[in-house]
Amino acid sequence: MDTVSIQNFREVLNDKNTFFLTSHVDPDGDGIGGMIALYHALKALKKDVRMILSGPVGQKYLFLPGANLITTGIPNDLPTDKNTVLLTVDAPNIPRLGFDIESLEALDPYVVNLDHHTSNENFGDLVLMDAKASASCEMVFYLIEKLNLSWTPEMATACYAGILTDTGRFRFSNTRPETFLAASKLLAEGAAHEQIVRLLFEEKSYGRLQLEALVLNSMKKEGPLAWMHCTNSMVERTDCDDTENLVNRLTEIQDVEIAVFLREVKNDLTKVSFRAVNSIDVNQIASKFGGGGHAKASGAKLPYDLETATKKVLQACNDALN
Amino acid sequence: MDTVSIQNFREVLNDKNTFFLTSHVDPDGDGIGGMIALYHALKALKKDVRMILSGPVGQKYLFLPGANLITTGIPNDLPTDKNTVLLTVDAPNIPRLGFDIESLEALDPYVVNLDHHTSNENFGDLVLMDAKASASCEMVFYLIEKLNLSWTPEMATACYAGILTDTGRFRFSNTRPETFLAASKLLAEGAAHEQIVRLLFEEKSYGRLQLEALVLNSMKKEGPLAWMHCTNSMVERTDCDDTENLVNRLTEIQDVEIAVFLREVKNDLTKVSFRAVNSIDVNQIASKFGGGGHAKASGAKLPYDLETATKKVLQACNDALN
Repeated sequence: MDTVSIQNFREVLNDKNTFFLTSHVDPDGDGIGGMIALYHALKALKKDVRMILSGPVGQKYLFLPGANLITTGIPNDLPTDKNTVLLTVDAPNIPRLGFDIESLEALDPYVVNLDHHTSNENFGDLVLMDAKASASCEMVFYLIEKLNLSWTPEMATACYAGILTDTGRFRFSNTRPETFLAASKLLAEGAAHEQIVRLLFEEKSYGRLQLEALVLNSMKKEGPLAWMHCTNSMVERTDCDDTENLVNRLTEIQDVEIAVFLREVKNDLTKVSFRAVNSIDVNQIASKFGGGGHAKASGAKLPYDLETATKKVLQACNDALN
Repeated sequence: MDTVSIQNFREVLNDKNTFFLTSHVDPDGDGIGGMIALYHALKALKKDVRMILSGPVGQKYLFLPGANLITTGIPNDLPTDKNTVLLTVDAPNIPRLGFDIESLEALDPYVVNLDHHTSNENFGDLVLMDAKASASCEMVFYLIEKLNLSWTPEMATACYAGILTDTGRFRFSNTRPETFLAASKLLAEGAAHEQIVRLLFEEKSYGRLQLEALVLNSMKKEGPLAWMHCTNSMVERTDCDDTENLVNRLTEIQDVEIAVFLREVKNDLTKVSFRAVNSIDVNQIASKFGGGGHAKASGAKLPYDLETATKKVLQACNDALN
């Protein structure tokens, strides 16, 4: 964030009194954490602040102090003028907020767009953007610091949770020296380190662990290609259908280049997730099946049963490897 | 580390020319990383430095820049006087270094004992101790900083690897604000973040992942007690006998209090690992079987086959829970 943006935001704080904070649909720890940290900071400045989302807060984030204050949908009683600020955290564009656009436009708020995604479309009246920041919460941290606002353990916990979410607990390459400086200060300000680590990164339902066991048992590997699947029968046996991130287990294998996870949905529908460890572009493989994503992580939906989909996908992967 | 200790170490650096650095048996990333960081720092001061261990460096640490310079055993040509410094990193006492004590005493070196374990026996001529430091490498970091020595990417990588090892990549409760400050500076000095994360925390052999799948499939849970086992047949099928840390998978389960991992060794020998999530003292359970450890992590060897050992262990756990 440049100094001009921060100065502009300081003026917004001086000028305006009503703030509603929001984030993208299916909000993660970074969006929710950033909203909550800013909520407490603005409350301390005696602002009228509300946190709103287009949908509910996911169960796993409800422990964040203040998550219970987030409401769903646009409240009816919001002032409809430019003195009302809509501060969006971690959202690349307005539609991604998930609200009914017409209701939002009728409000005509002053929009502050705080985000760290390069895909951000620079919408709004004031853009606070730092593509080098590991997380929107890393930006929120430096914003609060540079505005000389006071930290509370609640704010520190929310902000820290966002940084941990977007860095995969300091795993990803977006982790930078400034990220650790923020983490250091947040820990000193009382961030609930152990609780966040356990609730966001470690704790799982028994069913999820049973499902992981069944899925891992289907694992196969041929040279640099590893794959595994989840069937509906596995989901029924474990009473769990959460397969998020399971594909990443395959990327742990020493000499794997492409990891593939296939999820049986129906008899004629299979969802596939691709991961690349090094230089293979799995986005290209996914696009052959009408899917897409990024070079290192992509997905597709195939109109075939699990067995047929597996054959077709492995063939495409082997083509890419050869 | 207090200022007096650092000043004393500065005098050692002024007075003495020959340093041999060592660490405990089965050295981990913290011991090896600390040795390597200090090796490069002392080399830059034109000291005569060698790194020695009683056994070989584990395969997974060989990527650390300088690990190849570590030799096994006490070299024959070391000077035998108080001008020779033996600097021990991360070792609680002299026997734990694993060397032949008589050979070591014959050398009669000036011993500097750098460690962060509360169990350290304060041996040596100069003790550099900080029980609050997350890792010996966190101490090495602050030592190098306070002595105003220069960092190289090699030193930063070694030191960072040690901090990550002892904090479980910033997971454990020993992670403190100073730990993140050190991490921030080390990253800025060129620590090979992605390589360390992948090689020390993610990369696994295919066999290890297959073994994890089989072991996880043996998982059972009754209330707050979860257990699983590894048989010799599983080891044979996967050609892997590395079960390190597998027990921790069970502690991820939401309402588990005690996690138990049983490893079939022979027909009349079963090794058992216990983990506690909250307040149960598993050291007491392990001690019933002649084993021991810590309140949250302990182990025992039972002179029974897997089935009998399982029954006896579950009974003892249920007794502790009720």
